[in-house]
Amino acid sequence: MQTNTIKIFDTTLRDGEQSPGASMNTEEKIQIAAQLEKLGVDIIEAGFAAASPGDFDAIDKIAQRVSNSTVCSLARAIESDIKAAGEAIAKAKMQRIHTFIATSPIHMEYKLKMKPEEVIKRAAGAVAYARTFVDDVEFSCEDAGRSDIGFMKEIADAVIEAGATTINLPDTVGFRLPFEIGVMVKEMSDYVEGRAIISVHNHNDLGLGVANSLEAIMQGARQVECTINGLGERAGNAALEEIVMALKVRSDVFKDFDTRINTKEIYPTSRLIATITGIEPQPNKAIVGKNAFAHESGIHQDGVLKHKETYEIMKPEDIGLDQSDTLVLGKHSGRAAFKDKLAKLGFTLEEDALNRAFERFKILADRKKEIYDDDIRALVTNEMTKAEQVFEIVSLQLMDCSEGVPSAAVKIKKGNDEIIDASIGGGTIDAVFKAIDRITGFTGRLDEYRVKSVSEGKDALANVTVKVSFNDEPAVIGHGLHLDTMLASARAYIGALNSYLSMAGKLKERPKKVIL
Amino acid sequence: MQTNTIKIFDTTLRDGEQSPGASMNTEEKIQIAAQLEKLGVDIIEAGFAAASPGDFDAIDKIAQRVSNSTVCSLARAIESDIKAAGEAIAKAKMQRIHTFIATSPIHMEYKLKMKPEEVIKRAAGAVAYARTFVDDVEFSCEDAGRSDIGFMKEIADAVIEAGATTINLPDTVGFRLPFEIGVMVKEMSDYVEGRAIISVHNHNDLGLGVANSLEAIMQGARQVECTINGLGERAGNAALEEIVMALKVRSDVFKDFDTRINTKEIYPTSRLIATITGIEPQPNKAIVGKNAFAHESGIHQDGVLKHKETYEIMKPEDIGLDQSDTLVLGKHSGRAAFKDKLAKLGFTLEEDALNRAFERFKILADRKKEIYDDDIRALVTNEMTKAEQVFEIVSLQLMDCSEGVPSAAVKIKKGNDEIIDASIGGGTIDAVFKAIDRITGFTGRLDEYRVKSVSEGKDALANVTVKVSFNDEPAVIGHGLHLDTMLASARAYIGALNSYLSMAGKLKERPKKVIL
Repeated sequence: MQTNTIKIFDTTLRDGEQSPGASMNTEEKIQIAAQLEKLGVDIIEAGFAAASPGDFDAIDKIAQRVSNSTVCSLARAIESDIKAAGEAIAKAKMQRIHTFIATSPIHMEYKLKMKPEEVIKRAAGAVAYARTFVDDVEFSCEDAGRSDIGFMKEIADAVIEAGATTINLPDTVGFRLPFEIGVMVKEMSDYVEGRAIISVHNHNDLGLGVANSLEAIMQGARQVECTINGLGERAGNAALEEIVMALKVRSDVFKDFDTRINTKEIYPTSRLIATITGIEPQPNKAIVGKNAFAHESGIHQDGVLKHKETYEIMKPEDIGLDQSDTLVLGKHSGRAAFKDKLAKLGFTLEEDALNRAFERFKILADRKKEIYDDDIRALVTNEMTKAEQVFEIVSLQLMDCSEGVPSAAVKIKKGNDEIIDASIGGGTIDAVFKAIDRITGFTGRLDEYRVKSVSEGKDALANVTVKVSFNDEPAVIGHGLHLDTMLASARAYIGALNSYLSMAGKLKERPKKVIL
Repeated sequence: MQTNTIKIFDTTLRDGEQSPGASMNTEEKIQIAAQLEKLGVDIIEAGFAAASPGDFDAIDKIAQRVSNSTVCSLARAIESDIKAAGEAIAKAKMQRIHTFIATSPIHMEYKLKMKPEEVIKRAAGAVAYARTFVDDVEFSCEDAGRSDIGFMKEIADAVIEAGATTINLPDTVGFRLPFEIGVMVKEMSDYVEGRAIISVHNHNDLGLGVANSLEAIMQGARQVECTINGLGERAGNAALEEIVMALKVRSDVFKDFDTRINTKEIYPTSRLIATITGIEPQPNKAIVGKNAFAHESGIHQDGVLKHKETYEIMKPEDIGLDQSDTLVLGKHSGRAAFKDKLAKLGFTLEEDALNRAFERFKILADRKKEIYDDDIRALVTNEMTKAEQVFEIVSLQLMDCSEGVPSAAVKIKKGNDEIIDASIGGGTIDAVFKAIDRITGFTGRLDEYRVKSVSEGKDALANVTVKVSFNDEPAVIGHGLHLDTMLASARAYIGALNSYLSMAGKLKERPKKVIL
């Protein structure tokens, strides 16, 4: 029987990772999965095992690491996909296989080129086969938003009979309005009558992903699929943080519903994912945007002071954003204070990683007077998610003269060798990256270059994100963090190369990604 | 009588400009207003005239420039505010005064410290006084979302009697769910029965601003207040582009409703505002995000190729994003080709500005092989929205050595003088900015530093945005655009200073901003 606990199914690592420019290396995925577990997510969709050896490997490692959330792999309704999914999640304490096939006339006709009866048969077969691996099988009617409801009832009967425990109804193209999702969910939920959990997966193309998910809950859905920061293909998925906080803030309306989410982990989770993907929520993003809790206007601030409730419907602390305690450590802070701070920020590092992070903190503290929570977060995340360092920047030297030609000399360590070379460039960054290319022998195509100051002040840490593609393979992301923007840029570029090398050969086989 | 044309009331220049870090100079506001007019916005809320001489001046200039949209100023329900509003919009072809007072018990008790009867009296008085300036008066029940509906009917009667033509119901704290907004709008709209237009103004704190606005339209609202890119205080307002495109894409449901918006101007408007405010929509932002029309997954792309409709609910061209024509001009493109391109991108420059832009284009084309639409857009916007250049960067020279101390020498022009000085710094940027401080005599506090490559490639233009506050006044924004990130950074910093100087004295009097 269904209860009124809404299961939160997070697909940041699958649908989210498919957003252009959000690809992650295995180490990054593991860190995110661990954080999602801490957040209290019920199901972590860790990837699409059949997509590539890299995807398989990441799911396998996450399965070994996570124990309080179900670990799930996506699989098309074909045997080889389901087998890969079953094997990838085999080491998880709680396992789910999520299989799907399109059920809308337009998809069946043009993409699958299959008759409806064949689709039903394929779906039921896939679910039955998945049940030979696990007890927990989710089936998705891809493009449910444009599917015939009678047909979805038929297919639901067949897959439930075959052993499916969750039926998911994705609005794949993100064009449905809340009342339409409500009608669909109500009808399917009444029909299924507790034989399976009804789930929704709403895309955000018209900005309605969250509203659609809330309406679905009111009409009988007991699982919502969502992502942190609303990541995902195109305009992304419904944002986990918005759904969860709407349920909480409006518990007067949603009094019969609850989630397992520890909302105090929302902000740390959002920061981790923004740092790793380099995709920063816009300042006016609900809940986790930089301005979400900022009160600018005079009258307004006056109101806040006079009576908090006049403008605040939630407190920053509710999402784990403790503004009163932003200024944290300085030059003289010791190892114990640093470790305490990390614990408070939710990081648990092993001895080695802790030592490395502390070392970097001390170097930073020598040069920067005030160190903020966000500095520490950036520093540690950067440390924790690094791929194996084949190449390392040793030093950098550059000259720029607006009436002359910028040039850079870079020294790079590879194993026991140190190699040095220089290049000119159209600008300083261009010169630095070209010098690195000369040394490493890889020529990267720069798709994106971004810098953001981590905190305030002219001496703020620069957080550089680059998206680079090597050998015409899909672009990888690199991050560099340093007080000096140029050195941070060099580190980011070499970081992308290291990340590429750690995934090399695994990237090329990745075209079989999937959108629900 | 109401018709089924939904009036689009854009408040990017008022509520949007109040978002932390979005303050604009007068020149920038005028450019935005001209673009909003081209977009087909019905009412442009150009600012809050009583807030500061700078606000008044911007509204006055916009009133002279815009003729196809109504120009509106906000005013509290007090005489001096209404007088300032009336005077600021006096030169506009179509004029509106928008006055407001809080109507929720919590606001009346704690903020206004007024009894409900007094509030009604004040509101009616304000509207009557506003009518001595203009025929078109809007009245807002601030915090309508938490106001008693019976009380709002009373106040509606009073202000309509006094001459209000639009009654706006803001969900000031952004906590209402769509069905609640629907009930409120339906009841008010039935009650008012065509004596005034019912409007909504939905904030996005729970991610529901757009859903709430669409529900309001279905229940009788005939005006929606919104902003480009969803800018605004905290999590911002309902996004104009999402509301308008939802109405268009789902015209099967919204068949009785229409707007005057030319959707092909949505993308250019979004880019202009992102460039000016430095607030970039996240890539997964609906409609205008960088990924909104990007199709990453293999299966998915396959579907798109096989049959466009399988995944596309709208075309990039619908919002004026013409992807097929991205690669544009090169070194050998002449002035005519450049002018044609500008026209196609929607820019109409006067002879002088055109010449300057062409000059900058030629310099760029000498150093950069391929020039994209976004390069041109950035170049021209940068040119059009510059404040008067008190200081100008002449040249820049810098040395950075990761084992030494970064230093920068900068030459700056002020009037007929050229001044040169140098500084060391913790990093290269720090050195550049400190050298500029030395020369100009102003010490800026850097609140934010961001770089984004405008297009792809190592030789992409760097677009640098800085937020700097001088003399402890509210921060101003500066932009710099150059192939060399360092020179772009120097230009951005000096741009912020020029912008500050153009507004100096006008910034300090700005605390009286308002939130609805």
